[in-house]
Amino acid sequence: MSASPLDVESSSERLSFAQLTDLLRQVFVRHGTSAEVAQVLAENCASAERDGAHSHGVFRIPGYVSTLASGWVNGKAVPVVEDVASGFVRVDAGNGFAQPALQAARPLLVEKARSAGIALLAIHNSHHFAALWPDVEPFAEEGLVALSVVNSMTCVVPHGADRPLFGTNPIAFAAPRADGLPIVFDLATSAIAHGDVQIAARKGERLPPGMGVDSLGQPTQDPKAILEGGALLPFGGHKGSALSMMVELLAAALTGGNFSFEFNWSDHPGARTPWTGQLLIVIDPSKTAGQSFAERSQELVRQMHAAGLRRLPGDRRHRTRAKSLSGGIEIETQELSRLRVLAQA
Amino acid sequence: MSASPLDVESSSERLSFAQLTDLLRQVFVRHGTSAEVAQVLAENCASAERDGAHSHGVFRIPGYVSTLASGWVNGKAVPVVEDVASGFVRVDAGNGFAQPALQAARPLLVEKARSAGIALLAIHNSHHFAALWPDVEPFAEEGLVALSVVNSMTCVVPHGADRPLFGTNPIAFAAPRADGLPIVFDLATSAIAHGDVQIAARKGERLPPGMGVDSLGQPTQDPKAILEGGALLPFGGHKGSALSMMVELLAAALTGGNFSFEFNWSDHPGARTPWTGQLLIVIDPSKTAGQSFAERSQELVRQMHAAGLRRLPGDRRHRTRAKSLSGGIEIETQELSRLRVLAQA
Repeated sequence: MSASPLDVESSSERLSFAQLTDLLRQVFVRHGTSAEVAQVLAENCASAERDGAHSHGVFRIPGYVSTLASGWVNGKAVPVVEDVASGFVRVDAGNGFAQPALQAARPLLVEKARSAGIALLAIHNSHHFAALWPDVEPFAEEGLVALSVVNSMTCVVPHGADRPLFGTNPIAFAAPRADGLPIVFDLATSAIAHGDVQIAARKGERLPPGMGVDSLGQPTQDPKAILEGGALLPFGGHKGSALSMMVELLAAALTGGNFSFEFNWSDHPGARTPWTGQLLIVIDPSKTAGQSFAERSQELVRQMHAAGLRRLPGDRRHRTRAKSLSGGIEIETQELSRLRVLAQA
Repeated sequence: MSASPLDVESSSERLSFAQLTDLLRQVFVRHGTSAEVAQVLAENCASAERDGAHSHGVFRIPGYVSTLASGWVNGKAVPVVEDVASGFVRVDAGNGFAQPALQAARPLLVEKARSAGIALLAIHNSHHFAALWPDVEPFAEEGLVALSVVNSMTCVVPHGADRPLFGTNPIAFAAPRADGLPIVFDLATSAIAHGDVQIAARKGERLPPGMGVDSLGQPTQDPKAILEGGALLPFGGHKGSALSMMVELLAAALTGGNFSFEFNWSDHPGARTPWTGQLLIVIDPSKTAGQSFAERSQELVRQMHAAGLRRLPGDRRHRTRAKSLSGGIEIETQELSRLRVLAQA
């Protein structure tokens, strides 16, 4: 589709997915990435904006730009893919972004998953500054089940500890189903995602209780107090904390990447991207006994609806996506002007 | 070690691990399992009791016995192991218990994990009535990382739904570390484990708020109201609910097993064991780039302690285990008499 004409009454414009991707691609190239890296990051960021995942959409662009300017990340890194075993692929992202590393290893990973039944991708020396669901959803679109974890940067106090140690350490999962878009979730193991705290701070909103502590370790609902020397709490007490620990072990210890507390960007003012690792596990459900997996997952969805569940994980994003694809992706005019300046700068 | 002599002042006795295992083995054989199945289940149950995991220790024996008597489970089933692909093993447990199925497939699973880097075990047509950590901890003891999920029986209301659908659906994880016992956790994705509700009901204790609802769907702290027509809630709201959904997909849809809502034991009064599936994923961390995984996980433990965490997941069990191994496993005399009767019955 093409973009709708500018509505002069509103302070926003509507762009097609291709238009937004192209604009973001220009921003990345202008600020020091290779054309290949720019294309991957632009599509990723435009997808989040398209799906209404605003905390990982164009909101992230200033962070990308300041990080690239700081020399903290290599925007032109060429990932090195290693075929380690029949179910194990390793990528050194070369101090570049994680998404191009995944892109480079993807064909081998899918081939191994289909052949071995399950395959693992261990990315290290990588920066992940985006939502995690875009990394898993495409596998489900081709009939595979995918799980991914990525660690980030010290900002979560382990349950029972005094000081922050873990990152927000999300877990994302995607599975195909017969009569609809894949079942997909992406959940921070912190009580709230870091991007949502930043957005609340920018809007001057207070947070629900139980999300974080201030610099003295006291509970607070003020997002600024969390961002300025405070910290987040894990979701679900000791259980979420155990899962966050697991993410550190899988995404860092098992990949050869840094733990969330191991990198120091103080020599790179403006750096925002955590320099850690990422793990993906991809499973071929055609190896399963009995009925097709997609029929079975469809049955689970049917029963979840019958139990009164109106919204499945991923539903809201998929509905926003459909709206964006038919009517364009709405971007505030002011935001769009900033992006256009960055694309020329 | 041998058992301590009976302390006539107390109402408990101390048994060695071997003594308790032997007694439980006799109970299982007397109530219709094969010698092989009895050995596996007895060791599993004695391990839980030894580690202080009482809700999955000898407390479970009456449930096993009534289930075997009901004809719901085949205590003499011989699992059929299928080598599906270089990273994929499938087992039909033959309507028997899941643990002997795991035992039967274990050598092939470990061989595949070491060769492919990662391997998956899909158990279906199986009954899991025990703790999940005993299934993963032994892999970590031989240097592997293991993850397992098992679904159970409808008793958890999905977040945002009106009626129960999911099981308590635990997730267990184990990883080796250099200077100590493995890091292990086993967490129900329900706000509380079903066994703990049963124990609270038996003791007449109230539960903390947020654990469950009564038969009208209203929040309750009365464990009996939860057990008699009520239901549990997921831990951590929509996030725990998403994880519980993932467990249904992995443990049932991906193995060919039943969802938690798909079996009907009403023709088998006394049946207590969910007839579902179980998934294990085992990873060989020697395929990792850089330093040894066990050194890296040890570093994470060191930093967790430095952040003020006094107790790691698994620590309490491991401490109780050490105490049990040196001083014997304490069993109430009344409980022990019941077990001895069952062993002769």
